[in-house]
Amino acid sequence: MKALAFDVGGTKIYNAIIDEKGKILSNVEKNATPQTFEQLRDLFKSVIEKYEDDVDVIAFSTCGAVNNQNTGIIGSTGNIAKDYPKMPFTQLSKKPVYVENDANCAAWAEHIIGASKGYANSLMLTLGTGVGGGIIVNNTLLKGKSGAAGEMHFKMYSDNRRKCTCGGWDCFEIYASGKGLKLTAQEISNNSDITTYDVIDGVKSGDSLMLEIYNKWQNDIANGIIGLANIFDPDCFVLSGSLAEFVQTDKIEQIVNSQIVTTPTKIFKATAGNYSGMIGAAILALNKG
Amino acid sequence: MKALAFDVGGTKIYNAIIDEKGKILSNVEKNATPQTFEQLRDLFKSVIEKYEDDVDVIAFSTCGAVNNQNTGIIGSTGNIAKDYPKMPFTQLSKKPVYVENDANCAAWAEHIIGASKGYANSLMLTLGTGVGGGIIVNNTLLKGKSGAAGEMHFKMYSDNRRKCTCGGWDCFEIYASGKGLKLTAQEISNNSDITTYDVIDGVKSGDSLMLEIYNKWQNDIANGIIGLANIFDPDCFVLSGSLAEFVQTDKIEQIVNSQIVTTPTKIFKATAGNYSGMIGAAILALNKG
Repeated sequence: MKALAFDVGGTKIYNAIIDEKGKILSNVEKNATPQTFEQLRDLFKSVIEKYEDDVDVIAFSTCGAVNNQNTGIIGSTGNIAKDYPKMPFTQLSKKPVYVENDANCAAWAEHIIGASKGYANSLMLTLGTGVGGGIIVNNTLLKGKSGAAGEMHFKMYSDNRRKCTCGGWDCFEIYASGKGLKLTAQEISNNSDITTYDVIDGVKSGDSLMLEIYNKWQNDIANGIIGLANIFDPDCFVLSGSLAEFVQTDKIEQIVNSQIVTTPTKIFKATAGNYSGMIGAAILALNKG
Repeated sequence: MKALAFDVGGTKIYNAIIDEKGKILSNVEKNATPQTFEQLRDLFKSVIEKYEDDVDVIAFSTCGAVNNQNTGIIGSTGNIAKDYPKMPFTQLSKKPVYVENDANCAAWAEHIIGASKGYANSLMLTLGTGVGGGIIVNNTLLKGKSGAAGEMHFKMYSDNRRKCTCGGWDCFEIYASGKGLKLTAQEISNNSDITTYDVIDGVKSGDSLMLEIYNKWQNDIANGIIGLANIFDPDCFVLSGSLAEFVQTDKIEQIVNSQIVTTPTKIFKATAGNYSGMIGAAILALNKG
């Protein structure tokens, strides 16, 4: 069984042929994300026309919340064409089309072939520009009533300090993300030009101010995980995304397990690789029902 | 089918005969919670000996986290004999014994016969001295890896303001509970003798200071629910417990739905009554597997 899998992000769109075990069977093709709905649809169609006769299903890992029928996007998405949520995914191919949120797909890839393999209950947190979340309960993706579950927008403070990209205040995302690290750096250093690279480089060279910033950021991540661990009592957390390589999972695990009321949990880094979104989408699409 | 159901709390222990639909078939008996493990065991045994021949199963709704086998308690419990978690529930009767956490039982009662009936995804928050939580995902209780899920200990602030009863800092419980309301009242009024009753009475008579305290407390409840709504995308929340009667569910629903990134949710008050713990335990015990 084979899927033509897509990973649709705000900057790049990837596609590859992947089997039901998550093995990538083809080269991975990459395109810049087009600006308009029409260009997006045309790109999908041209790739699908090229490969659909060779595969059993088309599998989309996409930004945005995906409905419980896995046929389309609900609500709005941030960094992609405004009309993208209206994409008629199931009409793009003569083969079955399966759509799932990218964080959910990546969480599923980790669950089947990656860091959380063998664990029934896990949460994946993608620490990038923002924070993505994929939650697995009893070996099943947590989708909620409409499919939008797993949004990591819970408050770290209740007195309106940082405006979050979601429009709310002080969400986990605006502390634990790259953007959060930058804001923490600006606040502590009183330097509005400081970047996340400055912090990471500074930590490596032992700069005490950069270390203070880094520890504050990592403590915020741990504080968020404490709440999630008490709510879900999960076997483990998987940290992925561009910033995950910089966190100390052993340190976070120690902080978390010293403060939770549930039983100890584990903190892992993701191992399913950069194409975990496509891999998870393919595995889900080829193994459903 | 009939269960002998118990509700075991730190102050009182109730028991009654309940059928598989949650109907209470007997008088509800009430005992003060004994001080020692031995007295507790003897109380359970004497009630069980009296009724076990008339029922199919013994169902315990109890304080404390209950394991995934529904046979006993994991970890420690607060306001009851220190050795209570070692209670050999399954050895107390010749009939099958089923044990579940009281908040989970109450959530299940609401799900089957109460406010969240007909909804696949719901969270119950018990606002009492502390805050209890019961979470239902896809018509199944969320238990986590060990059975301890649903603990409402996620942070409302990250800068250590209020010590929580769990040993951590600034958990939802220490803001949304009766204890939280009292602390909010003390902080705003600068009066260490103020009680939750003063606040509730003051709100009824239109006292502006008491109204300020009440609104702050209710906003904290809403702030916590915002995070849970984004994480779970649930159909609804059910508020129960002694303080639930004082909250404005329409106001909280309006605040929550104006700030979440998931689709709108509903806020209800519990309707399954004071014996929802026993009712939920009986329904679970008589309908499992």
